[in-house]
Amino acid sequence: MTNILPAIRSPADLRHLSIAQLQQLASEARQRIIEVVGRNGGHLASNLGVAELTIALHYVFDLSHDRLLWDVGHQAYVHKLLTGRNERFDTLRKAGGISGFPSIHESPYDLFDVGHAGTAIATAVGMARASQILGDNRRVVALVGDASIVNGVAFEGLNNAGVLKRQFLIVLNDNSMGIAPTQGGMAEYLAKFRVSGLYEEAKRRAKQYLPQIPIIGQAAFDAIDHLKEAIKASVSPHQIFEQMGFIYVGPTDGHDIEHLIELLQALKDVQHPVLLHVHTEKGRGAPFASAEPTKFHSPRPFSVEESDCGCKVTIQSGGRSWTSAFADALIEAAREDARVFALTAAMPDGTGLNKFQPIFPERYLDAGIAESATVDMAAGMARGGLRPVCAIYSTFLQRAFDQIFQEVVLQELPVVFCLDRAGLVGSDGAVHHGFLDITYLRGFPRMVVMAPGDEPELNAALRLALSLDQPSAIRYPRDNVPEPLGMECPPFELGKSRLLQDGPDATLLVYGALCRQALDAAALLAADGIRVSVVNARFAKPMDREMVAAACDGRPVLTIEDHSILGGFGSAVLEAVQELGLSTANVTRLGLPAERFIPHATRAGQLKDCGLDADGIAAAVRGVLADRGGALRLRSVRGVGVGAA
Amino acid sequence: MTNILPAIRSPADLRHLSIAQLQQLASEARQRIIEVVGRNGGHLASNLGVAELTIALHYVFDLSHDRLLWDVGHQAYVHKLLTGRNERFDTLRKAGGISGFPSIHESPYDLFDVGHAGTAIATAVGMARASQILGDNRRVVALVGDASIVNGVAFEGLNNAGVLKRQFLIVLNDNSMGIAPTQGGMAEYLAKFRVSGLYEEAKRRAKQYLPQIPIIGQAAFDAIDHLKEAIKASVSPHQIFEQMGFIYVGPTDGHDIEHLIELLQALKDVQHPVLLHVHTEKGRGAPFASAEPTKFHSPRPFSVEESDCGCKVTIQSGGRSWTSAFADALIEAAREDARVFALTAAMPDGTGLNKFQPIFPERYLDAGIAESATVDMAAGMARGGLRPVCAIYSTFLQRAFDQIFQEVVLQELPVVFCLDRAGLVGSDGAVHHGFLDITYLRGFPRMVVMAPGDEPELNAALRLALSLDQPSAIRYPRDNVPEPLGMECPPFELGKSRLLQDGPDATLLVYGALCRQALDAAALLAADGIRVSVVNARFAKPMDREMVAAACDGRPVLTIEDHSILGGFGSAVLEAVQELGLSTANVTRLGLPAERFIPHATRAGQLKDCGLDADGIAAAVRGVLADRGGALRLRSVRGVGVGAA
Repeated sequence: MTNILPAIRSPADLRHLSIAQLQQLASEARQRIIEVVGRNGGHLASNLGVAELTIALHYVFDLSHDRLLWDVGHQAYVHKLLTGRNERFDTLRKAGGISGFPSIHESPYDLFDVGHAGTAIATAVGMARASQILGDNRRVVALVGDASIVNGVAFEGLNNAGVLKRQFLIVLNDNSMGIAPTQGGMAEYLAKFRVSGLYEEAKRRAKQYLPQIPIIGQAAFDAIDHLKEAIKASVSPHQIFEQMGFIYVGPTDGHDIEHLIELLQALKDVQHPVLLHVHTEKGRGAPFASAEPTKFHSPRPFSVEESDCGCKVTIQSGGRSWTSAFADALIEAAREDARVFALTAAMPDGTGLNKFQPIFPERYLDAGIAESATVDMAAGMARGGLRPVCAIYSTFLQRAFDQIFQEVVLQELPVVFCLDRAGLVGSDGAVHHGFLDITYLRGFPRMVVMAPGDEPELNAALRLALSLDQPSAIRYPRDNVPEPLGMECPPFELGKSRLLQDGPDATLLVYGALCRQALDAAALLAADGIRVSVVNARFAKPMDREMVAAACDGRPVLTIEDHSILGGFGSAVLEAVQELGLSTANVTRLGLPAERFIPHATRAGQLKDCGLDADGIAAAVRGVLADRGGALRLRSVRGVGVGAA
Repeated sequence: MTNILPAIRSPADLRHLSIAQLQQLASEARQRIIEVVGRNGGHLASNLGVAELTIALHYVFDLSHDRLLWDVGHQAYVHKLLTGRNERFDTLRKAGGISGFPSIHESPYDLFDVGHAGTAIATAVGMARASQILGDNRRVVALVGDASIVNGVAFEGLNNAGVLKRQFLIVLNDNSMGIAPTQGGMAEYLAKFRVSGLYEEAKRRAKQYLPQIPIIGQAAFDAIDHLKEAIKASVSPHQIFEQMGFIYVGPTDGHDIEHLIELLQALKDVQHPVLLHVHTEKGRGAPFASAEPTKFHSPRPFSVEESDCGCKVTIQSGGRSWTSAFADALIEAAREDARVFALTAAMPDGTGLNKFQPIFPERYLDAGIAESATVDMAAGMARGGLRPVCAIYSTFLQRAFDQIFQEVVLQELPVVFCLDRAGLVGSDGAVHHGFLDITYLRGFPRMVVMAPGDEPELNAALRLALSLDQPSAIRYPRDNVPEPLGMECPPFELGKSRLLQDGPDATLLVYGALCRQALDAAALLAADGIRVSVVNARFAKPMDREMVAAACDGRPVLTIEDHSILGGFGSAVLEAVQELGLSTANVTRLGLPAERFIPHATRAGQLKDCGLDADGIAAAVRGVLADRGGALRLRSVRGVGVGAA
């Protein structure tokens, strides 16, 4: 059989294919994805689930004019294969290659760079309103997963979508029946009417068919009682969506491509908000993935070995991650203090709390994709006498900025925020970098903001955090923990830095995870006879002023952080220097560029790109020293942003 | 009749009163509130609505042990009167007086300082879980308004509350029927059963009573059809709340104190999440307020003149506010550019968009209390070709931090954020200050962050913002616009400051609204022969580096902002100074203290408290100059925070 996928240059090519060919295309897309994700790592199970659905959407809608919004966006691989990105698809998540998420820089079919959940409905509403006003007559479709739709932003979006008086389609991709088991019965029955025309018309037609429901032969009371129960049990999603103004259609089989096309054709010009509820199977087409969809949600590279006894899948193993180190530290802390309670927002694996949960099931909560409520629940727990620890990625904690302010900081409650994925995150790219947390946290009164440099420091930081009567935050990256920074790890004391190495020529003032790189840079410099001090500041707030005063004695000081150069650790150092009445003229700040986003690559590659690997740091020190030798003052360091646009 | 209210020292005193006395108490509380709010301004209509409900809650629950969480909290005045704060109540919202919101510093009955909506359910869940774990057996009640419950955080809270296996009561205070008209019929009917016991028992009893519904006599088809419709129409809130795991009770009359007490008694020990839906009338007991509940939601001080022809209410008039100036500027801009679209999140009055809406109804959207979705919708509009303007208070835009990041900044979309209430807000106090926006906005790549100093500058800033192909933000305070800063207003040019006055002794580098205070300080200083330059930086990003370089020539520079001293405008100046290779030793930063919250007072009083009025600024300049004269370097300025804890 000829391969179809390579011949698809754009979605328009789909329309020449038969249903059987479209089905074959779905299989080929799956194979391509399994191959490439096996090699590069990435999101697997969800992408395998939406092959037919994606093909049907591109078949029915002209998405060069109409608008398709992806929620979260990790499930857009088939979409990428169909929109001219098949050839380059093996560069998935590699430096310079195809992004793991929709990207406006890759294709006009990608309308938003996304990665955080729950936003597509609201952006789609905005696009629908824009189309209404500009009269450019675009259909708008949002594709949303069942885990996303319970997010607060999604709910707000629904609430604002239901009032639209025009075409607006939400496809609810339900791959875990997370909302409610709603198959068959009344739901399917009603769905059939509704797709054949407008809602009101369907309701009229329903009257014709209703008497055919079997229960009609029974006694009046029973009929009423049963129907009431039947409506409650079987059409429950209706009620929510219909109350919010939607015509609800479904649930339907998301792998029946012919039926999907029929449904979408019937729905595409309904001038009213419609929600199409589709059931798909995560990991469809790869039995190892459908059997363990969580394990294969976003695996590292893996290999599949086929044999007579089935297939054996081996996922590449990593080293000891900061995530694992955190999980073990928290388990230890929970053993010592019965008040410790762990919270996550739908990331038990990513935050390591999947290790915590079986040990302390009563002291663990996964709130779903609901960072805002998670922080508020933690605040309630702290007010009630517990010691809650919120383990949330740096980038996702952005969703709870206002809850951190109002429920935690304003009450001075001892909630501990553990920010995994702080700094550059590697192949997930710009949507997931934790590049703003120091800025957004240190503005809060009484918030302690700290960062460990190795695993013993992570333990020590968590220990301090749990002993405080005020809010605190600990950041660490998506990386393996480095070799310990020293033989012994002094305990974390509020606002006290740690001198890692002493040297007269300059001071590397590091914030947390890049201490290893700084020590390696110091070793490179030592080979040239340049001897530098290396300090882990440990705290961005409160800042160790004694240390700052000592470092700013006229010798060069370089601040080093895995965070935006604006408003972060380096800026906190500048504030301290200024308040001490000292000069900042000898200070250089290294960090992420202020005005550009770092694309996907390995974390090591990204650090190098930003001049934050050992070589980059050593080069910066040499530059500063050379500059001081010469007549010019240092203004900027290559590769490092220096402020405003 | 003896007055009852003065005798209530704590809620325990309520339990000695008869129903008639409780009713009288409700009236007295209303009178007290009308009097004090008339004098001090404050939230009126909503507080008048919850008098009976608050009394019933305190009557039934022992809230010194049980937990009552207020959502938003602007409706807690009666609660304050009942919990030992009647005597001091005439200090409401005054410096040193009773806060307009619940406050942990005022009373152990106030569990959270709140002011932002939608969070009480989640914090209550946290408290319920803490009580479970600690075994201290506290009942938990959250009181939530109908405008709040459609907020995303509230939805996330509901989603996490429904799974609790213990007592948990949400009282839905529905004062505008914002959710759905659900009175009477089936709903009331079901409510009667449910309050008499647990849910399952109620369902069993329902079977007994169902045949008594009138429609039972009709033909089977009709009965089914009607019942289906009836269920849909009348019990719609049930479906949502019941699906989320709640027992739904109501709706019930929130002014029938006897029935409320009965209901609450019946519900208080149900070991399952319960939602009690209560209808109340905004402005109850004050016909002028119930007739115009929006006008009297949070009025300025007013006087009531009783006469034979009814009563005449006069609200104190203010001057020309920044809010009005913005509204007029936006209307003007919308006339010139058909792409301009205005969005607000439930604050049409507070943002001035109530002036915009009648002129451009098609280009206006009030999304409800849903800041996150509002920003996402704006992003969708911008992507679709419009020029959306989001008018959201600085403190509430905190709720959309992550949406600004992902949907606006990452896509470089030209959304304009207009931040009213930036800086100190006066009598609403700490929960409403806009003290973090410079920090949280300037970290975003390509975001333009600006602030006008007077009305012509506001017009010019908005004009620039709408011409940009990148996101931008304009901040202005809750205040009247000052006299124009100069005869002519030069247009806003990206990254260019405006010199307002020249002088050799020091430079006052102001960010926006405090230019007037800085000019007044300059006048005070001039009387002593000290001549200073005054500059409106206009931009916190991009910073005017030429201006910074020129100002930092060895003479003192004082940065002045109505914002946290950490990470804001002054810090942006430090970054620029450092990057220019200059010394910060001559820079002094004036702003809000880093580690304490400014309590409610007048805005003028708060500025004075922070040393940001003309006297404070002049004193700071004198201090800096004296210090330079002496041997000591300036380290801090009285009343102004200087960094970490």
